[in-house]
Amino acid sequence: MSITSLGESVTAQGRNGGVGSVFATDCPSRAVLQHVTSRWGLLILLLLLKGSRRFSELRHGIDGVSEKMLAQSLRALEADGFVIRTVQEQVPPRVEYGLSAIGVEVALHVEALADWIEANLPRIQQAAPEALDGAADTPGVRLDIVGGESG
Amino acid sequence: MSITSLGESVTAQGRNGGVGSVFATDCPSRAVLQHVTSRWGLLILLLLLKGSRRFSELRHGIDGVSEKMLAQSLRALEADGFVIRTVQEQVPPRVEYGLSAIGVEVALHVEALADWIEANLPRIQQAAPEALDGAADTPGVRLDIVGGESG
Repeated sequence: MSITSLGESVTAQGRNGGVGSVFATDCPSRAVLQHVTSRWGLLILLLLLKGSRRFSELRHGIDGVSEKMLAQSLRALEADGFVIRTVQEQVPPRVEYGLSAIGVEVALHVEALADWIEANLPRIQQAAPEALDGAADTPGVRLDIVGGESG
Repeated sequence: MSITSLGESVTAQGRNGGVGSVFATDCPSRAVLQHVTSRWGLLILLLLLKGSRRFSELRHGIDGVSEKMLAQSLRALEADGFVIRTVQEQVPPRVEYGLSAIGVEVALHVEALADWIEANLPRIQQAAPEALDGAADTPGVRLDIVGGESG
């Protein structure tokens, strides 16, 4: 699909399933969405929002990431133009990773999502058992479904 | 860490790396973040924002998802209380998936991110080659790093 059709699919009502959107396998927007929301990609974006970092600082700051996965995730974000790798001429060379202007924009959206989850964790943990304690499996019980246009 | 410390870590400046936040492996917020940003989880949330759907409708609407992965992703979102599965008593039983109130809230954040990517895809595609065409590998070249507190 064309890039124009992607832009046009963005409305206040959301997008049309399967037409020029992240719902389609072959749409480039889906690949980008996956890079910025990958397990490590999103944590990298959040950390770089606080300033540029060396590889070892990123590895230290993101609990549980391996060198391989960190390098791979940085590479994907670089390829999208969100992360910029800078090499400063000195011995040994100083390599830093930072956000581009467009990287800051996307990272702020990721941060809004992460902030919401952190702030609402008590509500999420309260809501969770309700959804799984059998009520949903009881025939005829219609739970609080929001925006429930019957499909 | 306690839930309270998680809530407190959310400030306008963002969170502290490694302390009560998504940066820590054992923090429940990280698991929730991964469910809502998983490859299929986020597309499910976006589709359910438009109304509740049957399993087959979800599978049809999300290009490339397998039955197994769809079932697994729905289960994770149900366990977090974002998605509610409803069984209506009829023959055969009608099973529908819809968003809970808290599910709508989190889905709107995911939608904001997806909308941004779709709308900015031309800018992303323009920015990408710049970042990779060798400039970043040239010693001494300092590119446009935003918010670059030296780490």
